[in-house]
Amino acid sequence: MPSFSRRSEQIPFSPIRTMFRMADEIERAGGGHVFRLHVGDPDFAPPPRVVEAACEALRQGKTHYAPSVGLEELRAKLAEKARSRNGLAATTEQVIVTPGSTQALFASMELMLGPGDEILLPAIYWPNYVQQVLLIGARPRFYPLGRGYQPDLGAIKEQVGERTRAILLNSPSNPTGAVFPEATLRAFHDLALERDLWILSDEAYEDFVFGGAHVSPGSFERDLPEEKRRVFTLFTFSKSYAMTGLRVACIVAPSARAATMLRKVQEPLVASSGTPVQWGSLVALDASERPGIERMRDAYRRRRDLAVSILQPAGLADYIPEGAFYIMADISSTGLTGDEFALRLLREEGVAVAPGSGFALVPEYGPDGTLRAEPTSSGAPEYPTHPGARHRVRIAFCVSDEELREGLERTVRLVERLRHGTPAPAAARQTA
Amino acid sequence: MPSFSRRSEQIPFSPIRTMFRMADEIERAGGGHVFRLHVGDPDFAPPPRVVEAACEALRQGKTHYAPSVGLEELRAKLAEKARSRNGLAATTEQVIVTPGSTQALFASMELMLGPGDEILLPAIYWPNYVQQVLLIGARPRFYPLGRGYQPDLGAIKEQVGERTRAILLNSPSNPTGAVFPEATLRAFHDLALERDLWILSDEAYEDFVFGGAHVSPGSFERDLPEEKRRVFTLFTFSKSYAMTGLRVACIVAPSARAATMLRKVQEPLVASSGTPVQWGSLVALDASERPGIERMRDAYRRRRDLAVSILQPAGLADYIPEGAFYIMADISSTGLTGDEFALRLLREEGVAVAPGSGFALVPEYGPDGTLRAEPTSSGAPEYPTHPGARHRVRIAFCVSDEELREGLERTVRLVERLRHGTPAPAAARQTA
Repeated sequence: MPSFSRRSEQIPFSPIRTMFRMADEIERAGGGHVFRLHVGDPDFAPPPRVVEAACEALRQGKTHYAPSVGLEELRAKLAEKARSRNGLAATTEQVIVTPGSTQALFASMELMLGPGDEILLPAIYWPNYVQQVLLIGARPRFYPLGRGYQPDLGAIKEQVGERTRAILLNSPSNPTGAVFPEATLRAFHDLALERDLWILSDEAYEDFVFGGAHVSPGSFERDLPEEKRRVFTLFTFSKSYAMTGLRVACIVAPSARAATMLRKVQEPLVASSGTPVQWGSLVALDASERPGIERMRDAYRRRRDLAVSILQPAGLADYIPEGAFYIMADISSTGLTGDEFALRLLREEGVAVAPGSGFALVPEYGPDGTLRAEPTSSGAPEYPTHPGARHRVRIAFCVSDEELREGLERTVRLVERLRHGTPAPAAARQTA
Repeated sequence: MPSFSRRSEQIPFSPIRTMFRMADEIERAGGGHVFRLHVGDPDFAPPPRVVEAACEALRQGKTHYAPSVGLEELRAKLAEKARSRNGLAATTEQVIVTPGSTQALFASMELMLGPGDEILLPAIYWPNYVQQVLLIGARPRFYPLGRGYQPDLGAIKEQVGERTRAILLNSPSNPTGAVFPEATLRAFHDLALERDLWILSDEAYEDFVFGGAHVSPGSFERDLPEEKRRVFTLFTFSKSYAMTGLRVACIVAPSARAATMLRKVQEPLVASSGTPVQWGSLVALDASERPGIERMRDAYRRRRDLAVSILQPAGLADYIPEGAFYIMADISSTGLTGDEFALRLLREEGVAVAPGSGFALVPEYGPDGTLRAEPTSSGAPEYPTHPGARHRVRIAFCVSDEELREGLERTVRLVERLRHGTPAPAAARQTA
């Protein structure tokens, strides 16, 4: 067999997807029910009107290629939403519909980054970002996060070098649930203006901010002429409408020129997005669907409160997430790493969580800028982990309150056992 | 605004998509009906059982993330299909479901090619291939096609150099409709074995071969041990089931190892494919859906015959396509290039066809291997064109027989006018 490209060998696996498979395997092997606190897939259904609109499109033969940039009707409505809700200076022309926000991120990065170019990422991040940067042959640099996973603004400027081309922002954040205040976002935008950098703003969780309003960094440049703008804003239907499996998201490009370039890049990457689901998504943007989003936000806030009420007294929560539906629980008192803890939690208590390490791999480079990473037999290199995530696990609030409570109580139970050196009860999994 | 990455600037636009927009613009501007012979989007509807299965999945809440590699049930059925219909040694594990075959091609190339690596492409090719190769920073080399767009086997070996890593095969071919005989495909496979190259076999049109059976090059290595295999086979639901807008295709990787690597690359590229459409696709594979495919094949064969019967007497067809639903018409007798002809045909006769040049751009490289391509104001460089396609236009058979006949008669009418130097009738478009 010929060899694989070096970049494909060098990218890590996504730790969330790995846990996904392990949990499935346990259930398939008859290992009992698994409490799925590892995956950020809402436990709600898409709005019924969206489902019906998608079905109607399917039945009416709206099953042909959509334009590469998406259906005109959907783009117009997304532009309107980006103007009225996010304060962007968005025209229909600037909106590109994509098959999910992962794909939107990759396409945007292809536009911004060449081999050897750098992008600033938060030190604790959604793993696909680093996979994407490495696949392009670019280099991630990490900006430090302090208390409550808020960026250390003073330290960020130092990260900007000759080859830095872009800054990634993700507020509300996956995996931390941190929401960056407007002043922080403005500081990033000022820096981008000063150093002529792109901004890639992943706003997948825009609708799930628990205190105050969501701020889109693109709104800071609404009054600038197009040629001065630099923010690519990503929105998705996945989280706001519980439509993860339908694969519809969008990019709002900062200018018509940038949108033309994006369209060109999308042709070889995906050709186009699904047509019936775009007709469904059109309906999701109706004002009548806002209360549904608000009900989901209330549920996530309630679960966040529930999680904190269980984790904090047990010494497992040292901050309160202000958005999204995650918390990075601190399990350092157990003496285990997040990876070890997650494995034992799955095996002994039937609870799946995502190890923190996967959100904090730190690729290392030699003095000549070459990525130091040799694949192991697993198919990916072993990357070192940022210490701030080594003893953490990410818990997602995408199960019912009851499941969440039970899963967290089991988590605390394992923590207690580990702290006191008590062995796992015999056949713990079977009696669970 | 910061600058765009060099690769994103250097890739060309897809000419098909450009024609798509121009045709839309003419109709929107009230320019009358356009005969759409430019796009390979079947004029049929997906099988009703597929539509109903997708709707049922939507309504039953099968709307969550699918695994990155696709639904287990669909992969198993695709593997069975690849074994029984294509003669591949395919296990479920080797099958990766993708959101369309464009995406499948890009992911496969990411696995095979690094910057500076080379891939052999047919000299007349589907444009996204070159966009993909250039976006990865790899280099296309072209193997010559002779009479009826059949490869010149003697000349192919000469194209293989130190950096050559892969060969792309596309039989039946878009845009030519050529079907490579088994002996030709075997010669390619022998060469790949001899020089340790990957093969990327795009079999989007496998079900539309008019004489004899479709041959999958992967079948040549069914009895080889996994580590000797090298063929990535791409199948799609788009053409066989008229499901272009649903975005479901798959890759059959040559080994479990290659599939693991593909899964890893798919995480940052797309995360996963749409879930409800995968449930729909599952039904498409039932034996009861074969007659529907055969009816479509009969329709395309009938239209191919119709097209040849009109184009050949007019001196516009110098070969007979044996598969897919395209013909590369020869308009050299008009003295115009394909681009000039296509523009006049659209304006004067309301017929959209795809200029041949877009299927034959030839990126040029300097002696140091650097791509010579500077973007123009359009957002893409102007690439030279292979002479074999300069005076050609691609005609697709994806409209009714009546539309096809009328569109082709109008095409012949323009050709006659051009040959005799007759001016276009006044208001030709309005009276048409």
